[in-house]
Amino acid sequence: LRIALIGYGHVGKAFARLLQAKRASFPFRIVGIHTLRHGTAYNEGGVSVEPQWEVRASTLEEFLARAQPEVVVEITTLNPEDGEPAITHIRTAFARQIHVITANKGPIAHAYGSLSDEARRRQVEFRFESTVMDGTPIFSNVRNNLPGVKVLGFRGVLNSTSKVVLAGMQRGLSIEDGIREAQAMGVAEADPWYDIDGWDSAAKAAALANVLMDARTTPQTVERKGLRDIDPAEPARLAGAGKVIQLVSSGECVDGSVRLRVRPEILDQHDLLAIVKGTSNALLLHTDLMGTIATVSIDPGVEQTAYGLFSDLVDIAKSV
Amino acid sequence: LRIALIGYGHVGKAFARLLQAKRASFPFRIVGIHTLRHGTAYNEGGVSVEPQWEVRASTLEEFLARAQPEVVVEITTLNPEDGEPAITHIRTAFARQIHVITANKGPIAHAYGSLSDEARRRQVEFRFESTVMDGTPIFSNVRNNLPGVKVLGFRGVLNSTSKVVLAGMQRGLSIEDGIREAQAMGVAEADPWYDIDGWDSAAKAAALANVLMDARTTPQTVERKGLRDIDPAEPARLAGAGKVIQLVSSGECVDGSVRLRVRPEILDQHDLLAIVKGTSNALLLHTDLMGTIATVSIDPGVEQTAYGLFSDLVDIAKSV
Repeated sequence: LRIALIGYGHVGKAFARLLQAKRASFPFRIVGIHTLRHGTAYNEGGVSVEPQWEVRASTLEEFLARAQPEVVVEITTLNPEDGEPAITHIRTAFARQIHVITANKGPIAHAYGSLSDEARRRQVEFRFESTVMDGTPIFSNVRNNLPGVKVLGFRGVLNSTSKVVLAGMQRGLSIEDGIREAQAMGVAEADPWYDIDGWDSAAKAAALANVLMDARTTPQTVERKGLRDIDPAEPARLAGAGKVIQLVSSGECVDGSVRLRVRPEILDQHDLLAIVKGTSNALLLHTDLMGTIATVSIDPGVEQTAYGLFSDLVDIAKSV
Repeated sequence: LRIALIGYGHVGKAFARLLQAKRASFPFRIVGIHTLRHGTAYNEGGVSVEPQWEVRASTLEEFLARAQPEVVVEITTLNPEDGEPAITHIRTAFARQIHVITANKGPIAHAYGSLSDEARRRQVEFRFESTVMDGTPIFSNVRNNLPGVKVLGFRGVLNSTSKVVLAGMQRGLSIEDGIREAQAMGVAEADPWYDIDGWDSAAKAAALANVLMDARTTPQTVERKGLRDIDPAEPARLAGAGKVIQLVSSGECVDGSVRLRVRPEILDQHDLLAIVKGTSNALLLHTDLMGTIATVSIDPGVEQTAYGLFSDLVDIAKSV
């Protein structure tokens, strides 16, 4: 398969390295990379992990016309407010009947319904496993392994920065000190308040609801409270009583529509959602036929996000 | 697809009910059921959930010749020592080029290597999702969602009775009192000492290693300690120090071969393997590309085991 990348940061590099390592068993070739910062690279024989950059193609159209990919991997930097420019990139690829994979939660949180309609109309595939849990199988688990199952709701702890900051608050740190800790660990988003105020968790809740519960919603509709809504002394006080606060993303069916919430919840210290720390995430899916099943990712990093893209690629290769 | 069941207990009934409920969207039909206790039932239009039993077919061969199934679902009672008669049932079906699904861990723990070779030779499918975690996707997760990934090892808490008994010991109960508790909850095996002495956990470890790590081993090769190897006062003593004992099944690669162990392990009370109670199970898979991912089943029951068979059936329907 001929692959083109849009964006080339840490995840892109890890993905390129992975494709190279797996080349013998999986015949995937990066024929072009388009970036805002470095320019554009093409190579029919496979762009190397350290690409030779040319002058930037003036439009994405021009890039795609020259690279002629079968699959586009969208990994630009997220604009959390509206999911752009990733949504436009994805539409542009669909319009040329190119399959799309993204690690970008914005398009899934803001426009999954219309994007998946468009993919169907153009008869192309659309995959996004790395958007919510760093490549750990969530969407593919439901799609491939849970046929006939209806997802009734979910509860998840899905944001790294808030976990680090809450653990700091348990020890008496301020939110600001906790943010510095998260930044030192390299887990915070460019704007840490996006994490702290629950926007990242809301985007993930909307993405889960859009894909798994057919919700056609956006992060803005999520009832959202963040860490600034907590009494700063409460985490430490609760710790003494065997309780933990986590920023929980949840979705449930209420009267035929999906109610989404992000809020700090008080959990028993032995709760599955209480024990996940740092970049580890946990997601409980409530289903009709399989009861409740949980998936936990343990300390995932950029290599796992890159693997999620790879697993999407193999899934597309199987279905074309 | 024409389905035949061998065995018809609680799981079989739940499975038959599920097929009936899903008939509109999944065209699966039970054309025959063969049991030791009730006799044999046939119906070209679909055997009902409460079958009309006829005299038992004198051999499995005779049953299969008359029912002419495309898929056999093997759900007889397990003989834990050698996996029979399930292994012979599966071989008999393979010999007639019939796909097989089983919820029976014995064949996977004792003979997976040779059975899967045989299935390949006969060009039939073989599935067994319900054998280790009551239908929660484990094997299908690796097969369908983790392409190119190597499983390097695993750690799991996979036996219900031992969890109930250990929780009792924490409160000062004896093993025997704990067994009575587990029996009252309906989670104990016919012979509870099979659970307590770690044989069930060893069978599950062998099954996981056979399928996910190509180990070609049996439960007898697992280094095994059970609850009788614990000082009876220890669980209560450890509880005071924030520690929990669980019966852990584990597998790891050591010098190119797979080392399997079942033993009571002392865990921090916040460990993922420490917090699972009752029928809830947890399994950590250590992989090369996806790091460590965990799956947790929350209070599964017979409906989930039946769903595991159903998901296997859909998977087979997709690949034939």
